[in-house]
Amino acid sequence: MPLINKQVTLAARPKGFPKESDFKVVQAPVPEPGAGQILVRMLYISVDPYMRGRMNDVKSYTPALQIGEVMGAGAVGEVVDSKNARFQVGDVVEGFFGWQQYTISAGEGVRKLDPSVAAVSTALGVLGMPGLTAYFGFLDVGKPRSGETVVVSGAAGAVGSLVGQIAKISGCRAVGIAGSDAKCAWLTGELGFDSAFNYKTASDYGAKLSELCPEGVDIYFDNVGGAITDAVFATLNSGARIVVCGQIAQYNAEKPEIGPRLLWHLIVKRARAEGFLVFDYASRYAEGLRQLAMWINAGKLKYHEQVVDGIENTPRAFIGMLRGENTGKQLVRVG
Amino acid sequence: MPLINKQVTLAARPKGFPKESDFKVVQAPVPEPGAGQILVRMLYISVDPYMRGRMNDVKSYTPALQIGEVMGAGAVGEVVDSKNARFQVGDVVEGFFGWQQYTISAGEGVRKLDPSVAAVSTALGVLGMPGLTAYFGFLDVGKPRSGETVVVSGAAGAVGSLVGQIAKISGCRAVGIAGSDAKCAWLTGELGFDSAFNYKTASDYGAKLSELCPEGVDIYFDNVGGAITDAVFATLNSGARIVVCGQIAQYNAEKPEIGPRLLWHLIVKRARAEGFLVFDYASRYAEGLRQLAMWINAGKLKYHEQVVDGIENTPRAFIGMLRGENTGKQLVRVG
Repeated sequence: MPLINKQVTLAARPKGFPKESDFKVVQAPVPEPGAGQILVRMLYISVDPYMRGRMNDVKSYTPALQIGEVMGAGAVGEVVDSKNARFQVGDVVEGFFGWQQYTISAGEGVRKLDPSVAAVSTALGVLGMPGLTAYFGFLDVGKPRSGETVVVSGAAGAVGSLVGQIAKISGCRAVGIAGSDAKCAWLTGELGFDSAFNYKTASDYGAKLSELCPEGVDIYFDNVGGAITDAVFATLNSGARIVVCGQIAQYNAEKPEIGPRLLWHLIVKRARAEGFLVFDYASRYAEGLRQLAMWINAGKLKYHEQVVDGIENTPRAFIGMLRGENTGKQLVRVG
Repeated sequence: MPLINKQVTLAARPKGFPKESDFKVVQAPVPEPGAGQILVRMLYISVDPYMRGRMNDVKSYTPALQIGEVMGAGAVGEVVDSKNARFQVGDVVEGFFGWQQYTISAGEGVRKLDPSVAAVSTALGVLGMPGLTAYFGFLDVGKPRSGETVVVSGAAGAVGSLVGQIAKISGCRAVGIAGSDAKCAWLTGELGFDSAFNYKTASDYGAKLSELCPEGVDIYFDNVGGAITDAVFATLNSGARIVVCGQIAQYNAEKPEIGPRLLWHLIVKRARAEGFLVFDYASRYAEGLRQLAMWINAGKLKYHEQVVDGIENTPRAFIGMLRGENTGKQLVRVG
């Protein structure tokens, strides 16, 4: 067993968009599991938009990261030593293990994976936090009805790409907004979205939305915020629901962003905008995972993983994800 | 019976804040009721914030007023001629009769009032649209739980003054935001609000809210929007509800107002912002009116009416209401 545990820590709080120099790859000894603990060797590490918020020194739903602290993250790894009766050496597990090659854990919040059911990497994507976010956010917060029109921003991302497909499964019309023509072609050609447009080349979002949503928008699943969201608000139907999942367009702003005031739309349209965190659905994760797996097996839910190799490349993969360079779920494979 | 019907029409679409010259007092013949119709002589006319929206040439939940059209408005009047078996001469009725001394009506949407139950003017306030707005907006959209903290903007207005009292009846803590020290004294001294502050003299809304809501804000009943709302969003508790009733701070803006983007607060706080229109609760008006009347009779719900005399003064009363010069419900008494 190697003695060195490579870790990626927060080196500096980013000003605006994170740079690779805001992170530092450090080496620590591989920890020794104590009584009741397991030692996990990482296989896949997740990079997710929410991590950007934790890099700021701001109170939020999770505490801010401290300078020098290992970046927190969901990850999948193999149990290589166990002093916990629940886990055997060789078990593949998912947990909040961080951007590092090894970690010890008491097993709390650690999920054992069955590699015969699905590739273990999916525990960080379609059969993990992003999948559950799409499932509960769209169905529980969005409350779709058959025949409704659903618009998804960040539609080619880990969550958005699933939301549009769950919208189709629910009998809705699904319209995606994404950042390249290739992504849009993937959404409509592979995933079954009814239509999609590239916000980087569209000159008038409002006109594009009117063209693609001639009957207006009933559900807006928002991963992005900003000018895209401003345009969608103007197209909402009476009784519309805005599922506020993410606002990635603002996460790297150096000062609070301003934009047109939107709340009056909610009155005129009797609409509801609701934020949610997937963690609040923890008691129903089993239900969500079961349904997502059934849809995958039935060929109704497709997913894509984009994989970068090497723990050292985790910051670059994270920054690329924030720039929208990924299609589907961005992962780091740890050698 | 006089032959002249004084009416107030829309003379010009206001640019920004309405001026008296945007209205015109005209004289028309008193109309003759046809078969199935009644002739109503106005006693009280309502001026309400929503009317400002109808003066713009913008599609909304009601059609825009046309230049030269009589201003639409709820009003209370006496039936002075009837060719409709449902109504007798002498009946006092409430309906959407407009800013005029007389109107004919086929009786649709016209409610007969019982002057022995309450002063008939209350049919335009606490026992009318504003009362029902407070009742359904706070209880149905806000879903209060005992012990929660409720903040109300426009707290001394026709709706806000009732919301804070219904919050107290519901076991909540009620904090009002209003535009004068006298209004704040009325809210806390007469109506039982726990506290209130004057936004015109407060230098830091956020600091004031932190002081008056040490446990954060669970329900925000928003009549106003703008900078007050920005500050309240920063104080929301997890699971908060924002009842978006009005955005009067913006109704007179000449171009779309901008402000800090707010949707990300909804994620972090798992909060819900929901707009509503009281008309959507029409099937439950009887329930609302019954409950409001019971609270009034039990001394639990107080109201104030501010009355201006003379149909000619309706534009001035309306403009004053938009400026926040009224305490409680602003009415015009028609001679």
